[in-house]
Amino acid sequence: MGEKATYIQPGNEFNRDMNYIPDRITRDARTPEFGPTDVPLWPVEPGRYRLIAAAACPWANRAIIVRNLLGLQDVISLGLAGPTHDARSWTFDLDPGGVDPVLGIERLQQAYFKRYPDYPRGITVPAIVEESSGKVVTNDFPWITHDFFHEWTDFFADDAPDLWPRDLREEMDEVNQRVFTEVNNGVYRCGFAGSQEAYDAAYSRLFVALDWLEERLSGQRYLVGDQLTESDIRLFTTLARFDAVYHGHFKCNRQKLVEFPALWAYARDLYQTPGIGETLDFPQIKDHYYIVHTDLNPTQIVPAGPDLSGWDEPHGRESL
Amino acid sequence: MGEKATYIQPGNEFNRDMNYIPDRITRDARTPEFGPTDVPLWPVEPGRYRLIAAAACPWANRAIIVRNLLGLQDVISLGLAGPTHDARSWTFDLDPGGVDPVLGIERLQQAYFKRYPDYPRGITVPAIVEESSGKVVTNDFPWITHDFFHEWTDFFADDAPDLWPRDLREEMDEVNQRVFTEVNNGVYRCGFAGSQEAYDAAYSRLFVALDWLEERLSGQRYLVGDQLTESDIRLFTTLARFDAVYHGHFKCNRQKLVEFPALWAYARDLYQTPGIGETLDFPQIKDHYYIVHTDLNPTQIVPAGPDLSGWDEPHGRESL
Repeated sequence: MGEKATYIQPGNEFNRDMNYIPDRITRDARTPEFGPTDVPLWPVEPGRYRLIAAAACPWANRAIIVRNLLGLQDVISLGLAGPTHDARSWTFDLDPGGVDPVLGIERLQQAYFKRYPDYPRGITVPAIVEESSGKVVTNDFPWITHDFFHEWTDFFADDAPDLWPRDLREEMDEVNQRVFTEVNNGVYRCGFAGSQEAYDAAYSRLFVALDWLEERLSGQRYLVGDQLTESDIRLFTTLARFDAVYHGHFKCNRQKLVEFPALWAYARDLYQTPGIGETLDFPQIKDHYYIVHTDLNPTQIVPAGPDLSGWDEPHGRESL
Repeated sequence: MGEKATYIQPGNEFNRDMNYIPDRITRDARTPEFGPTDVPLWPVEPGRYRLIAAAACPWANRAIIVRNLLGLQDVISLGLAGPTHDARSWTFDLDPGGVDPVLGIERLQQAYFKRYPDYPRGITVPAIVEESSGKVVTNDFPWITHDFFHEWTDFFADDAPDLWPRDLREEMDEVNQRVFTEVNNGVYRCGFAGSQEAYDAAYSRLFVALDWLEERLSGQRYLVGDQLTESDIRLFTTLARFDAVYHGHFKCNRQKLVEFPALWAYARDLYQTPGIGETLDFPQIKDHYYIVHTDLNPTQIVPAGPDLSGWDEPHGRESL
């Protein structure tokens, strides 16, 4: 997601800039059934697009997981930016020569500027870039994964899960909204609070939501319905970072994830699902938050903990 | 303990300034049997001295607890500085008018300057101040509590514990040394590390020591022998602050205290011992570390967590 050099506005609550490049990629550039439609439409086409992500970023992690689960690795390529960056944002410093091997650029910013030379907002991941032109097509993250599922169906693996069951959409939309505002974004609201009052309010909001989730997931294996859906993926990417960064760095510290019995077992269940756990890179996650946010951690020292060995422990949720 | 405005020396390991005002207070100003003897000696005298402490500080907490356990409250008075302070150190901002009611001063610094007008080192708690002259007698914390026990015997409560059993002294000295360097000071070595390398080394040292303590305390109720000694008090004041500040603020985050079964039960056992638990003021502890150390926490936002309700849970260690 987008990161600027300074995250905290003194005195204020953190507000995420939600203005993205809103283009959609749809089958034959058809008008999508859900979400924004009055936007530029691009056609689904294998080999045309590159997903630019970063293992560190929870919003990009969602796109990597959905691409894996659906089996789209051969039709949408993947480029990965490194975990740390400066005020000009994400760079390809993990690649040989510091250059993305397909796009031939050092900084993701270059792909944004190819699309809009004066692009004024945050340079964010995930972003979909057209390989031939090197232009960003969209960075509107909720619709990127939505469209992976609804528009790329012809290219799915045989065992691709139904991440958006039609009979669950209404409930998913409700749950997704609450998870987004209260949890995915809620941890940032704690970490980037500009005053004690804003932080205290953010902390309360976050743990009200986590208590709701703990209760909900005590009696059911998945967040919505009785199968894995995108709602689970959306929650998972925040839970996976909770003890490693949000608990300490963002002061989300009423308790650790491992101290929520149901949520912790639920997170392990997802982690151990093929296509999910292997996308997590805890060292990159920690490096990103602790090194990039110098207004929270001026020493840039990255904690050695927590002990993460528990992620592979049996979760026992098959019986739910 | 002493706090300067800047705690971190970039690139370096944290080194505590261990030069203190070394005077001893002994019965009839006799030469003490243990510890430094070539120092000014002051006589034990009820009503003559005032212990200046702060609920936030672990080193001062030790002195408050020992004074409580021995029943010295009526013969040595207690003044408490507030949790936060500036570069000139501890102030009496909790007292009416911001003035210590006995010493009549606003800042502990004034008592140091009465003793030494050019006092060049940190203004630290605990400090013993002579009430009549307003001069600091000593701030040499390990000997303050040692002398409470060995020199003020005539004024003990009837049920005062034997905090320094003669047959355990040798073992206590060894254990105390390790607990001091590796744990009491070890958490500061993590928090004030001036480089990633210094931090990583400090973190390893700390958790080696905590693993040793976890193992040791799995089979015995107290740290040395089968009774409460000052060794326990010395360890306790760090454990009590572990989850509230050291885990997050100092990045001592392999695991929380509550994730060490024996150490956590041991800490609760001590906490529930009359004279000990009531000396802890978690809000002051958190305010102190998170507000004073601006080079670690520039926002000065104080975390709302952790949940501390577990301290009152049964510890089950009576059977050990």
